[in-house]
Amino acid sequence: MAVILDGKRASAELLQELKGRVEKLKERGVTPSLALVLVGMDEGSRRYVKMKARRCKKVGVEATVHHLPEATTEEVVSLVEKLGGDPSIHGVMVQLPLPEDIDEDEVLAAIPPEKDVDGLTNETLGRLLRGEKCYPPAGVGAILELLERYGIEYVDRHWVIVGLSDIVGKPLAALLMSRGIPVTCVRSDHPKLSDYTRMGDVLVVDVGRKWAVGGEMVKPGAVVIDNGNNYEDDKVYGDVDFEAVKEVASAITPVPGGVGPMLIANLIKNTVEAAENSI
Amino acid sequence: MAVILDGKRASAELLQELKGRVEKLKERGVTPSLALVLVGMDEGSRRYVKMKARRCKKVGVEATVHHLPEATTEEVVSLVEKLGGDPSIHGVMVQLPLPEDIDEDEVLAAIPPEKDVDGLTNETLGRLLRGEKCYPPAGVGAILELLERYGIEYVDRHWVIVGLSDIVGKPLAALLMSRGIPVTCVRSDHPKLSDYTRMGDVLVVDVGRKWAVGGEMVKPGAVVIDNGNNYEDDKVYGDVDFEAVKEVASAITPVPGGVGPMLIANLIKNTVEAAENSI
Repeated sequence: MAVILDGKRASAELLQELKGRVEKLKERGVTPSLALVLVGMDEGSRRYVKMKARRCKKVGVEATVHHLPEATTEEVVSLVEKLGGDPSIHGVMVQLPLPEDIDEDEVLAAIPPEKDVDGLTNETLGRLLRGEKCYPPAGVGAILELLERYGIEYVDRHWVIVGLSDIVGKPLAALLMSRGIPVTCVRSDHPKLSDYTRMGDVLVVDVGRKWAVGGEMVKPGAVVIDNGNNYEDDKVYGDVDFEAVKEVASAITPVPGGVGPMLIANLIKNTVEAAENSI
Repeated sequence: MAVILDGKRASAELLQELKGRVEKLKERGVTPSLALVLVGMDEGSRRYVKMKARRCKKVGVEATVHHLPEATTEEVVSLVEKLGGDPSIHGVMVQLPLPEDIDEDEVLAAIPPEKDVDGLTNETLGRLLRGEKCYPPAGVGAILELLERYGIEYVDRHWVIVGLSDIVGKPLAALLMSRGIPVTCVRSDHPKLSDYTRMGDVLVVDVGRKWAVGGEMVKPGAVVIDNGNNYEDDKVYGDVDFEAVKEVASAITPVPGGVGPMLIANLIKNTVEAAENSI
């Protein structure tokens, strides 16, 4: 019977701890503060940013949404630079994707590394790889937090990452490498995908296709992390066939309710850490 | 019988091609120019920098050595910034290691990404990982050049990298990931190292220990790349037991004469490319 890695429970626990850390910071006169930059009118992004701000406030972190309904790259860069230079702000995040006419690279490059709590800049990627101080992307922190809270030993186990996005697979691989943890990375449409997935003691799947990984693709006893988020008829499905794989794995994240709920909690954790590091 | 990947021959061929590219640039009024920054009095570094400058000149690339025998971090940073801002200079490289009292991160961060022809900054690492335009470190370019010149197909073969340095293993893994090539990274003192090395269709070894990898650790038919450079009684030895492994591998780099001779050639290649990209 696989252990179900319950992200709702783990994130509630994490948020509770963060509340305590925020209180301690406030006693020292520091209120952790996150600036959220939102560009354009995408309904999904607007909702997600609002949700992030709401969750921040719940644990006592100040969150300000800076919404530019219409803007040039220069205007977004100059806003990000202003926020980056403001000593009362500890974290700056830019909601992606940006509208098509905005140069994402230029905007991200304007975030100072010590305030990059969303962990998506090239500088942060480089630091992750070299094992220098930085804030890993929420998708990476979410996975490690879940394993740690369930007491799952993951060092010196063989990680296999399927799907190499800039926000999960690549930065996770970078972090594992910098810690000397063995990791195999493979793209999701590799013709011999199963040969790779079956090697994983810890198998991280982020391929964006409903039930792409079935039970026969998983090593018995593996820990399986599902980053899928596939909508079909208003229901959300994972990249992993949960019912089949839970019979093979030793632990597995459900979708919904696995990695998902950990994401915002990890963004807040990074912000609190940035505030702690600022004093 | 394994093919011996002859780095001397391959680098001579590459330098010959670069000569032609430099001539074309000069016809357009551009002389590729590399600034080499050397700090301190380390004899080995001085010799290596001089050798780099000499090789540059041989193919028509201008190379200027900026030697600060004694300097503070601020002085080195300000020199690097001045060189970075000079439009007649296409590449800026800082010879590592820097003296202990100099902040290496700060110095590297001062190199503009479009002039980072040594490929060692965090920004370049991040770009490598995301597959954006940048100049990979010479150690990475050297390996790919060798394989390509010998017509060895390496896409969709399983790469295994043993030893995760910031200048070879990690940036190579980043580049492979960004190209969707399957790669496994493992640190050199992993207790089950052989389990990993035997998976590699392409096995890259960079562990800094004479003959650390023997024949029994190599998959039959693998391509083996040896980055070792271990001195013993004035002789240099690889990390791979060449005599044993060449009986198992399909291709192998010797030490000396494998990857080594390709390093400076790749630094020059990056400089020529930076000059081409500047117009």
